[in-house]
Amino acid sequence: MPKPKSFKLVEIVRRFGGELAGDSTVRISRVAALESAGSSDITFITQARYLPQLRSTAAAAVILGREFRDATAVPRIVCDNPYAYFAKVSRFLNPPPAVARGVRKSAVVDRTARIAKSASIGACAVVGKRARIAADVVIGPGCSIGEGVVIGAATRLHANVTVYHDCVIGARCEVHSGAVIGSDGFGIAREEGMWRKIPQIGRVVIGDDVEIGANTTIDRGALDDTVIEDGVKMDNLIQIAHNVRIGAHTAIAACAGIAGSAKIGRNCALGGAAMIYGHITIADNVSVSAGTLIMKSLDQPGAYTGVYPFSTHQRWLKTASQLRQIDELAKRLRALEQDAKRAERNKT
Amino acid sequence: MPKPKSFKLVEIVRRFGGELAGDSTVRISRVAALESAGSSDITFITQARYLPQLRSTAAAAVILGREFRDATAVPRIVCDNPYAYFAKVSRFLNPPPAVARGVRKSAVVDRTARIAKSASIGACAVVGKRARIAADVVIGPGCSIGEGVVIGAATRLHANVTVYHDCVIGARCEVHSGAVIGSDGFGIAREEGMWRKIPQIGRVVIGDDVEIGANTTIDRGALDDTVIEDGVKMDNLIQIAHNVRIGAHTAIAACAGIAGSAKIGRNCALGGAAMIYGHITIADNVSVSAGTLIMKSLDQPGAYTGVYPFSTHQRWLKTASQLRQIDELAKRLRALEQDAKRAERNKT
Amino acid sequence: MPKPKSFKLVEIVRRFGGELAGDSTVRISRVAALESAGSSDITFITQARYLPQLRSTAAAAVILGREFRDATAVPRIVCDNPYAYFAKVSRFLNPPPAVARGVRKSAVVDRTARIAKSASIGACAVVGKRARIAADVVIGPGCSIGEGVVIGAATRLHANVTVYHDCVIGARCEVHSGAVIGSDGFGIAREEGMWRKIPQIGRVVIGDDVEIGANTTIDRGALDDTVIEDGVKMDNLIQIAHNVRIGAHTAIAACAGIAGSAKIGRNCALGGAAMIYGHITIADNVSVSAGTLIMKSLDQPGAYTGVYPFSTHQRWLKTASQLRQIDELAKRLRALEQDAKRAERNKT
Repeated sequence: MPKPKSFKLVEIVRRFGGELAGDSTVRISRVAALESAGSSDITFITQARYLPQLRSTAAAAVILGREFRDATAVPRIVCDNPYAYFAKVSRFLNPPPAVARGVRKSAVVDRTARIAKSASIGACAVVGKRARIAADVVIGPGCSIGEGVVIGAATRLHANVTVYHDCVIGARCEVHSGAVIGSDGFGIAREEGMWRKIPQIGRVVIGDDVEIGANTTIDRGALDDTVIEDGVKMDNLIQIAHNVRIGAHTAIAACAGIAGSAKIGRNCALGGAAMIYGHITIADNVSVSAGTLIMKSLDQPGAYTGVYPFSTHQRWLKTASQLRQIDELAKRLRALEQDAKRAERNKT
Repeated sequence: MPKPKSFKLVEIVRRFGGELAGDSTVRISRVAALESAGSSDITFITQARYLPQLRSTAAAAVILGREFRDATAVPRIVCDNPYAYFAKVSRFLNPPPAVARGVRKSAVVDRTARIAKSASIGACAVVGKRARIAADVVIGPGCSIGEGVVIGAATRLHANVTVYHDCVIGARCEVHSGAVIGSDGFGIAREEGMWRKIPQIGRVVIGDDVEIGANTTIDRGALDDTVIEDGVKMDNLIQIAHNVRIGAHTAIAACAGIAGSAKIGRNCALGGAAMIYGHITIADNVSVSAGTLIMKSLDQPGAYTGVYPFSTHQRWLKTASQLRQIDELAKRLRALEQDAKRAERNKT
Repeated sequence: MPKPKSFKLVEIVRRFGGELAGDSTVRISRVAALESAGSSDITFITQARYLPQLRSTAAAAVILGREFRDATAVPRIVCDNPYAYFAKVSRFLNPPPAVARGVRKSAVVDRTARIAKSASIGACAVVGKRARIAADVVIGPGCSIGEGVVIGAATRLHANVTVYHDCVIGARCEVHSGAVIGSDGFGIAREEGMWRKIPQIGRVVIGDDVEIGANTTIDRGALDDTVIEDGVKMDNLIQIAHNVRIGAHTAIAACAGIAGSAKIGRNCALGGAAMIYGHITIADNVSVSAGTLIMKSLDQPGAYTGVYPFSTHQRWLKTASQLRQIDELAKRLRALEQDAKRAERNKT
């Protein structure tokens, strides 16, 4: 491994802004967490509860907000949004590995596909008829790109991604391995005791700056398209059904599922394993807690939760058994209330 | 894109039956949703709540049930099951894209495998020893077909599907990308503080007309086989554990999971993220709601649910905290009831 | 199919220990379940509830614990841990299929990768720069092994597994198809209404004797590594987020999810679809029931559950509606109690 390049703290500030406090000539070459940072590392702090670790950090420098400006003597960059600042420094010190341009010899590209010269098509990747791959796109090894697919500039598909025919992916997206884009929606009609498949003839249309996690699946629309707007961030193992629309800059954690034709607003946050019914509408700025099932439309922003609180198994046996009889409890309570009322009446 | 072929409405009725009302010579070339249909599109309606959209549709023709026969003057096909009729018309107007027969040059097929002449083996697909691929089968790019696998006529595997050794898939099935069929079941035995793997020597045996969604996993049996009967339809990201049996014509929505050795009846419907315990039996015609965990056998048909009702996070904090103390509530209620009874006794 | 090799029962006992009862010369060639075993099969029993099947089994021999020694006259092996014994016999009778050593012609291996001579690299697999593949490793067809990946001796990756750059997998591991190891963690920082990606520069480091199920995803660490300790067993479709640590010999059932930076103890058991919040710590020997969401750290061993008990949909409508008003119920109960107390005071 070659020695990593290092930069003076002042060079970082010149490039990304912020106020420099302490020794501006300290050199940094890596980013690291508060606890594991060493003498050539820059770290960050965003919450007061990490102040003890800040006091004992061995980091060369730290990125922090104004409120922590004087909490340390370590050379530091003071800024408004330390986490976002840290993200930029980390990207600067850890550029994505260079990928060789051009089509690997073992890739199979249809002669009617149009591949930008600066794009990279990985080993054993397959690109179908009339696909259009823009500049600086990276298609990983083993990917399958269907007929007529369009992929925008600087988008990266990691290894073994599948994109079905005619889907559209915007610019600067990142799609992780095993993701499947454009599989058939689950459209079936009952006829004489059997299921008849409804052809799924819509597409998946994905905006710019979207991230899609590993093994996430996004189904094509039944008639109209499934739409993922700009800046949406999705984690792993998420299911997006046919004709869903996800508003711009919404973030979805792993294992979540959104059923058919649901419309999710902009700037929403869905927690892990959150599930959304089909054919409902979620307003902008809604936050759904992990493990929560949303069964009807939400027209107000805010945080929503529905999770059975865990306990020891023994205690759960009791609460679950009472919950099963809760309408019995309610009836008995009503009876007592009526008795009390009757007693009251009799007294007067 | 070539101009799509068009058909007179009367030609559709001649082919698929139903009663024609209105102008029989109107030409249609595409299917579309009520709201987005244009002047060469045929659409459908199945529920009264969409009647307003029917009134304003720009569609050339509409498929509907007898109850809506006179709800529009648009040329129309009146039939018993409009959704299934629509499915047939859609398939007629949208035939699956033709796939070139034969084995792509980059595919790797063992010389002992038997591939029907009319089958198609995609680029970079791998077919193992003694596999048997029937007529009109399509194996997508990047698929891996293990040793001894048998695939029935006209079945289609989309790109990047994996089928482990000795599994059997019936005729006219469709398997979506990333699906894994025949991986080892989760069989482990505790021994001296470690886990010893139980070899999984059963197979997966899948009937005819089965659909399997993207990234769904079906484990092989431990000793006997895992069995998926005819006509089962499965959505994406579903887990089917070892030795499960799923009855014919059952439909399973995305993110559901069925644990080992569970037996699911025929004509069941499992909602999204429904979870079924291992070693239990579910009767025919059972419907399990989305997000519901079934912990014991169900011997009666019907609909079953178990979901914590969501609310705002603030309200949830209150209900969850009371639920945790529900047996305390029940005790206090019982105390009041006993006091009341005692008071009653003292009065008399 | 060649006729399977057979062994006398006494040969099995010589190899694996235990006490032999009954005819020691009976020959067995296969393992089978109690109910389906035939005259050349060995089976096992571990629970009294299967005694009826034991009585009617057609098996040639049975493996059982001392408590069942005299429950049958079938030739038998008496031992302390029949299930683990059975696992060994099954592995002996069902050795994993031999895999041809060496690099398949269609595989694409970077010339700087180091591949042991006894390793097998499957068709259309891709191995990146500086990867190190140890002795007896099997890399399945279509796998993608990133730059700098290290894989320990005798580990097997089934078809279509993806391992991102610089990840480390120990010895004797088994990774099932579609698993993704080392994808980016879900690290995003909000900045001016958009999400900025946090580079994920840690690795995934996996110990020895780990099993990873089909389509399971394990994200690389943000700064430090994601760590899976020795002997961990994971089922299918599991999500392990960045910087999670899973203690040795913990078993995790399908569809479970563990959020970022959670630490799971040793010898834990997570049920199917169990979900663990981020940044919490679970003690050793904790068991989490299927479908349970754990929202805070657990420092005591034991079993924990939190699942809404299912019922018919009609009954659920009632319990859910009462649950929504449970704090109202509690208030009314308190009012009655206060009335009763007041009445009591007035009496005296």
